[in-house]
Amino acid sequence: MDSGNVAWVLASSALVCLMVPALALFYGGMVGSRRILNMMMMCIGGASLVAVLWALFGYSLAFGNSVGGLGLIGNLTEYLGMSQLLADNPNAALPGALFAAFQLFFACVTTALVAGAAAGRMKFGAWMLFAGVWATLVYFPIAHWVFAFSSADGSVTGGWIASGIKAIDFAGGTAVHMNAGVAALALALVLGRSTGWPKSEHSKPHSRPLVLVGAGLLWVGWFGFNAGSALAAGQSASVVFLNTAVAAAAGLLAWALAERLRLGAASSMGAASGLIAALVAITPACGAVSPLGALAIGAIAGAVCSLAIEWKYRLGFDDSLDVVGVHLVGGLIGTLLIGLFATAAAPNGVNGLFYGGGFRQLGIQAVASAAVLAYSFTVTWLIAKAIDKTMGLRIDPADELRGIDLAAHAEFAYLTDEEPVDLGSPRRT
Amino acid sequence: MDSGNVAWVLASSALVCLMVPALALFYGGMVGSRRILNMMMMCIGGASLVAVLWALFGYSLAFGNSVGGLGLIGNLTEYLGMSQLLADNPNAALPGALFAAFQLFFACVTTALVAGAAAGRMKFGAWMLFAGVWATLVYFPIAHWVFAFSSADGSVTGGWIASGIKAIDFAGGTAVHMNAGVAALALALVLGRSTGWPKSEHSKPHSRPLVLVGAGLLWVGWFGFNAGSALAAGQSASVVFLNTAVAAAAGLLAWALAERLRLGAASSMGAASGLIAALVAITPACGAVSPLGALAIGAIAGAVCSLAIEWKYRLGFDDSLDVVGVHLVGGLIGTLLIGLFATAAAPNGVNGLFYGGGFRQLGIQAVASAAVLAYSFTVTWLIAKAIDKTMGLRIDPADELRGIDLAAHAEFAYLTDEEPVDLGSPRRT
Amino acid sequence: MDSGNVAWVLASSALVCLMVPALALFYGGMVGSRRILNMMMMCIGGASLVAVLWALFGYSLAFGNSVGGLGLIGNLTEYLGMSQLLADNPNAALPGALFAAFQLFFACVTTALVAGAAAGRMKFGAWMLFAGVWATLVYFPIAHWVFAFSSADGSVTGGWIASGIKAIDFAGGTAVHMNAGVAALALALVLGRSTGWPKSEHSKPHSRPLVLVGAGLLWVGWFGFNAGSALAAGQSASVVFLNTAVAAAAGLLAWALAERLRLGAASSMGAASGLIAALVAITPACGAVSPLGALAIGAIAGAVCSLAIEWKYRLGFDDSLDVVGVHLVGGLIGTLLIGLFATAAAPNGVNGLFYGGGFRQLGIQAVASAAVLAYSFTVTWLIAKAIDKTMGLRIDPADELRGIDLAAHAEFAYLTDEEPVDLGSPRRT
Repeated sequence: MDSGNVAWVLASSALVCLMVPALALFYGGMVGSRRILNMMMMCIGGASLVAVLWALFGYSLAFGNSVGGLGLIGNLTEYLGMSQLLADNPNAALPGALFAAFQLFFACVTTALVAGAAAGRMKFGAWMLFAGVWATLVYFPIAHWVFAFSSADGSVTGGWIASGIKAIDFAGGTAVHMNAGVAALALALVLGRSTGWPKSEHSKPHSRPLVLVGAGLLWVGWFGFNAGSALAAGQSASVVFLNTAVAAAAGLLAWALAERLRLGAASSMGAASGLIAALVAITPACGAVSPLGALAIGAIAGAVCSLAIEWKYRLGFDDSLDVVGVHLVGGLIGTLLIGLFATAAAPNGVNGLFYGGGFRQLGIQAVASAAVLAYSFTVTWLIAKAIDKTMGLRIDPADELRGIDLAAHAEFAYLTDEEPVDLGSPRRT
Repeated sequence: MDSGNVAWVLASSALVCLMVPALALFYGGMVGSRRILNMMMMCIGGASLVAVLWALFGYSLAFGNSVGGLGLIGNLTEYLGMSQLLADNPNAALPGALFAAFQLFFACVTTALVAGAAAGRMKFGAWMLFAGVWATLVYFPIAHWVFAFSSADGSVTGGWIASGIKAIDFAGGTAVHMNAGVAALALALVLGRSTGWPKSEHSKPHSRPLVLVGAGLLWVGWFGFNAGSALAAGQSASVVFLNTAVAAAAGLLAWALAERLRLGAASSMGAASGLIAALVAITPACGAVSPLGALAIGAIAGAVCSLAIEWKYRLGFDDSLDVVGVHLVGGLIGTLLIGLFATAAAPNGVNGLFYGGGFRQLGIQAVASAAVLAYSFTVTWLIAKAIDKTMGLRIDPADELRGIDLAAHAEFAYLTDEEPVDLGSPRRT
Repeated sequence: MDSGNVAWVLASSALVCLMVPALALFYGGMVGSRRILNMMMMCIGGASLVAVLWALFGYSLAFGNSVGGLGLIGNLTEYLGMSQLLADNPNAALPGALFAAFQLFFACVTTALVAGAAAGRMKFGAWMLFAGVWATLVYFPIAHWVFAFSSADGSVTGGWIASGIKAIDFAGGTAVHMNAGVAALALALVLGRSTGWPKSEHSKPHSRPLVLVGAGLLWVGWFGFNAGSALAAGQSASVVFLNTAVAAAAGLLAWALAERLRLGAASSMGAASGLIAALVAITPACGAVSPLGALAIGAIAGAVCSLAIEWKYRLGFDDSLDVVGVHLVGGLIGTLLIGLFATAAAPNGVNGLFYGGGFRQLGIQAVASAAVLAYSFTVTWLIAKAIDKTMGLRIDPADELRGIDLAAHAEFAYLTDEEPVDLGSPRRT
């Protein structure tokens, strides 16, 4: 076993863990000051539940040997409880426990992303139930499809997208971003709009600096997400790292420029969103394109998503924090553009349309995208409906008006919201 | 020397450094807005002082060859000033300078943890003096006991807990958490309660989002703390990483559930505390248990600590930020539960009671715990008393009421506390 | 290729990326609440633009083979568009794509540092133009001078400072900190003082906790900056890491002590600044000195810079966030003190004056410093003047008074600045 590879995947796993609090900041700053705790709790609490399920059975469903060799779902009992991972296997490329830890945070982050569609109006218990069921029925299977590769010797069968049609999705354009994005859409539709949407005070970002810091930390964590997915410290991870860095920068600039041209000013919210949209789009493509391709994908994602986030106002669904406009659209852009910009000189070794590879890869990418979108939307909608019909999804409207933090967690985020403080008058002394 | 191992310990050292600002955030959000700067300064300032002492003589006391072979304290002169670490030793498993840097931040973090007991009422100079003396008389010796291992060839003698009775403490349940927790208790007792405790405005958390972000960043840093303690990038670090990830998640859920059942709502403060309590408990045990064992230890720590933090109200000591309830109790839980949940299949290779190992390891763990608790409490109490009788520990009561930030640092954290701002009325333009 | 080295440089690159949002926090907390978004946007937006230019041609200018072997500028076409870096070169010490990504963030951070001189009064478009031109005409050439080393076989010629006079600058005392510091001075002079300086409300730090957290995260990222510059995971990186850790701590203490003695209280702003000043000073010296030397350099930088930041009031230039006092002065201190404190036992292998090496190295260090200062100041001044005469640098004075965030980005940072919120009266329920 190569200790350098292990070192990098260990570091990458910590970086992907960083994305959980980073996302909590990014989302938390975007909501009102009486919704932030709930939003952060949805991210961190949901992630924690998924981590526990991952240890119990999720890793088996995602990375166990494919049941019946169909590529649809892993063997539930193969790593049940994960004690199997204690055994050292010197012939493996990486310790099984490490791969399981690395992928654990993918499951956590993906689930937390969905929360952005449900800001300020969903029962916390209903969210936790949703998160657990969603991870089990949607994320774990799709992770198997996309991330589980068949072994070279044929002893292990992986997922149908990874090893069957061989779509390229380096770090999760389909399994993570389009999946979370379309699930967010389904949840938002079932959940309904926030009271007073889109003009409620609670819907306005109460702290843009938190959004910017969250985006910055997500950028940092994303290097673990993307370059860690090389599962080795070498040429492949290096190219992926570079592509991830430049794509993000191009996305920020493209969104800012689009805003400047359309609205007259480049906002900080736009810059943060452009950074994230580009990171989303480069996630599937980071191993397939050149740095110039990465710049193009990042810029296209930044510009297109800056338009896409307005659809919710036209179509009238309250995707509170633009999970659809950024993650669904950004993920789709990146997944499809592989079919155009892929170059065989990059780690994935495949040529897209612009490099003489024809339409073949584009078609494969489209099939993978359509499958993930259709499955995730349908099952998510059913889960949300089922919870809505039984325990109910929405909090009491009066609680929503007073702010969900008080209703769901019996807290205010800031002491200043709690009660007037009079500490004498030390100010001028 | 294996560069992969070096790479991981380098990255881990940076992650442990992250715990210093993360702790400053975690603690800083939990106090009032006129105490936060002092709390952050206690963390970062105290850590800085300890880092300098570490370079001067602390590393020698902790990791020098045991004086007289007794396992009580290292040889003061062995690494005095640390210039000895410039010499390259290709036969060593790791560069001495790297191990010294990694352990440096353990000393910093442990000292900073103690500050949580002294929020808002301790002279900053007295704290800095306390921090320096405490590190020298308490942390450096205990680190020697627990973290200094005898060399295989017998040329170097380590500490009595690590190499004598061979207690299992992978990353510091005794030396770090129980030590900091019981020292916090001693300091809180000598220092006395905050004026108006427990109802003072200053005692209330002024920004729960900071607490959540701090907890999240501590989680990230903790992977360096625990998995870095494997000192190599391989199977052991991988298992430790996985155990640390799942235990933390279980702790968050357990605390949240306990709160929900007892108080009707799962608070963000509880979630953050549960995460940390579980991380504390898994710290000694992360190399000794299976992922299921880690889930159990995390969940037990989360649930028990959620009760333990209320003792301070019954017993009447002002452990402002629950260092006792989380770090002492959590550390003790993890250290003792090794005696039950340890499995020989895990890196430490020892069976606990539940795995057929009998009561032996449990007894050893209890002895180590008792020794650390007794020594740390006694010496800390004496240090605090000595400073109290000489320069005094408490700030002026009037300054306490106005807020320690102004008194100790001549600053307010936020401009809004400072004076009313009137910048015209651009709001509606 | 050694995977352990690759792993460490990958992790280091992520750590240097962390410095971008960390700097945005550090700077953002230091300005008023109606300037923070603009300050963060200058950091993150400027960094993004430089990242894109780096991919297009900057890496070529900095690390291409020296044009004419003069050591002044790299070959523009060598890595134009960076597609050349996709090719795997197993004989290289590191993948070219990785080195390019690591150095990318150096360019980003250096440019972002300059923004600290221009808080609250510079057109955002003018800043972006400045950032792009400055990186091209100032940073890329100087990075070539200082960071591009000639290859052992003579096939590649590097910069005149690195490979000609062989000044020691491990991670950028000249190319990064003195360069950014003196550029900040030039920009501040051309830009002119902020309206109402130095007493404007907008000039006061609105959130010191953000400053402290930013400084803490910069500390963490700096380990990637310095120890990553070893480009290998071994003895050299380990010594550099240790020196970086202890110098920072000494700088914090020295500044705090100086403040305590001069002004009666150690402020959090001083502590944060002392930490950063020491990190700046140890940046060039981290591979040249012993831990005691690092302590000395850190302490000297902390104490001297605490005085240096007052020059701006005497000389009347509005270097809003003390880029000159901290980065120019700190960088100069570290670069020159190498001439005194360097020891041949450290990785750089050179003796300074105090270790019997005579005045030779000190002279070389002074030449490198003078060249960077002169070139950067002159060209920066010309760039700023050119932009001022054409599109103009300053925003409208009325916009400055209302706060640049509204004028430049059509946003307020905090909802509380935006409009009064009345959400009913849930407070007492």
